[in-house]
Amino acid sequence: MSSALSPSLDVVAVGNAIVDVLAHADDAFLEAHGMAKGVMTLIDADRAEAIYRAMGPGVECSGGSAANTAAVIAALGGRPAYVGKVRDDLLGAVFRHDIENAGVAFACKAAADGVSTARCLILVTRDAQRTMNTYLGACRELAEADIDADLVASAKVVYLEGYLWDEDNAKAAMRRASRIARAAGREVSLSLSDPFCVNRHRAEFQDLVRDEVDILFANEEEALALFESTDFEDALAAIRPHVKLAAITRGAKGCVVISGNATHTVAAQPVYDVVDTTGAGDAFAAGFLRAHTQGFGPEVCGRLGNMAAGRIITHFGARPERPMADLYVQATA
Amino acid sequence: MSSALSPSLDVVAVGNAIVDVLAHADDAFLEAHGMAKGVMTLIDADRAEAIYRAMGPGVECSGGSAANTAAVIAALGGRPAYVGKVRDDLLGAVFRHDIENAGVAFACKAAADGVSTARCLILVTRDAQRTMNTYLGACRELAEADIDADLVASAKVVYLEGYLWDEDNAKAAMRRASRIARAAGREVSLSLSDPFCVNRHRAEFQDLVRDEVDILFANEEEALALFESTDFEDALAAIRPHVKLAAITRGAKGCVVISGNATHTVAAQPVYDVVDTTGAGDAFAAGFLRAHTQGFGPEVCGRLGNMAAGRIITHFGARPERPMADLYVQATA
Repeated sequence: MSSALSPSLDVVAVGNAIVDVLAHADDAFLEAHGMAKGVMTLIDADRAEAIYRAMGPGVECSGGSAANTAAVIAALGGRPAYVGKVRDDLLGAVFRHDIENAGVAFACKAAADGVSTARCLILVTRDAQRTMNTYLGACRELAEADIDADLVASAKVVYLEGYLWDEDNAKAAMRRASRIARAAGREVSLSLSDPFCVNRHRAEFQDLVRDEVDILFANEEEALALFESTDFEDALAAIRPHVKLAAITRGAKGCVVISGNATHTVAAQPVYDVVDTTGAGDAFAAGFLRAHTQGFGPEVCGRLGNMAAGRIITHFGARPERPMADLYVQATA
Repeated sequence: MSSALSPSLDVVAVGNAIVDVLAHADDAFLEAHGMAKGVMTLIDADRAEAIYRAMGPGVECSGGSAANTAAVIAALGGRPAYVGKVRDDLLGAVFRHDIENAGVAFACKAAADGVSTARCLILVTRDAQRTMNTYLGACRELAEADIDADLVASAKVVYLEGYLWDEDNAKAAMRRASRIARAAGREVSLSLSDPFCVNRHRAEFQDLVRDEVDILFANEEEALALFESTDFEDALAAIRPHVKLAAITRGAKGCVVISGNATHTVAAQPVYDVVDTTGAGDAFAAGFLRAHTQGFGPEVCGRLGNMAAGRIITHFGARPERPMADLYVQATA
């Protein structure tokens, strides 16, 4: 069933609204604090305090996986909205400012009480890898009531971040968003977010992918984890029957897009000055969806995804520093 | 008169404790908001709110001219302390974290009430110039009582930022710091900060340079403004009799250091990837003082100043991203 109205938005992204605190660190720091390099770990307020006290001088900027994706879609010239929960505190105001002024419609009321806006303490090592420690704070308040049916139905794609599965309220909100989108004839897109996140919620993610997801985003490790595949070809075969499109990112090797029986391997352009890989996957999804919502096929979608990710890793932080309209023009030429 | 104890610190820096909010902007934005490119303008809370609402997505990081200098001295392996006033709010906590974890002793109690921690809204244009709009907030509470006599006497040099002259309380605090340093046989160093700041306080700055300052920092424009000189040679001649050392920075041309009758021209190494000139002068002063407090002569001081400035302008923001010990080794080899 298709909605009577043609969609006015490209993508509504739903995710954890987080302010990132980025600092450089060495491997010894990660080890001393028992951190697994390259992954996202949920932490409580006390551990957040302890890590912050120990880590180097930081740079604060808005983050959150799906929010980064929304910001990159806007930088690429698309029309995104974002739903995520902040507190009405100073960091919440920073988050709202940054997402709105990036050109994204921010469609979620701030919490008037309770814990503070979420923070992610990100340690960036010399190898440009990022190790993330997330204090969810106000994100835990995201609930079904925050999902506006008209908003979701007005977008071609609803994009859900897997990280939301860590909270029951948020999970209910995502299920509602998915229901609304499907009822309106829109597409549902899911990012698996993190291999540890997949391990925590494998059965539910499998059900989602089988029953609700049209477009799946994962990196290689997450794709393997989803159906506990032993090699990459197995993972593709396990995922293929369930979704219209799946884009599996492989770092410097680019991505593989599967679509029905077709498999498209899209090489990445080499990036010589990788500074910080924070947000690479988020930017990839943005590029992919920006092209997809304009009707481009898997090759172009993968190419723009690769290009957006390649741009974002040349600087510190996961949000675009400038408009990326040039990439859209280049990828779709 | 020399203090009986040998100094345990290299530099005590005193300045406005500010959190920077950096965003990219174009010339049209500056024009539309009546901003003079490249200078620092003091703004009130309402204008701060209005500019913030209009400016693009930002990156927050600790700033403040003298605080940046202290952080770079630490990155270069020196022993700095910093005195500046924050509020005990979230931005104040960020400022404290960043300066302490940069290796700087933070020696000032936060204000328990009153207005919030200072913010500087910095617009960075394509030409890497920065245009600064400062809401002073809690900085206005810095007072004589904040200057610890033992701390100041324990450092080889007290470094004062000219920006402090905009507030009477802060001015009194700086005069006290200068008195204590001179009584202990230490050196007094002043940065002229900004040509508009020099124009606002010319007579007082002249008196200071004549009577109290041992080491003067200025860029070319500020040096000209100080004694209303018509050309660079005149400016050097006007300044020369009053100070032991003066270092005048000239952007890509490097710097000129005057010392008695001697004039040392120290060329800058070319920097090919200038991203953001925020903090270039602050970093120069840091490099200069780091070498000076180790007993190096004007040439080496100027060289390390140039190198530290050259490093800081290759990235967004005014604080070092990593240790700079390599520069110290190189400059003093």
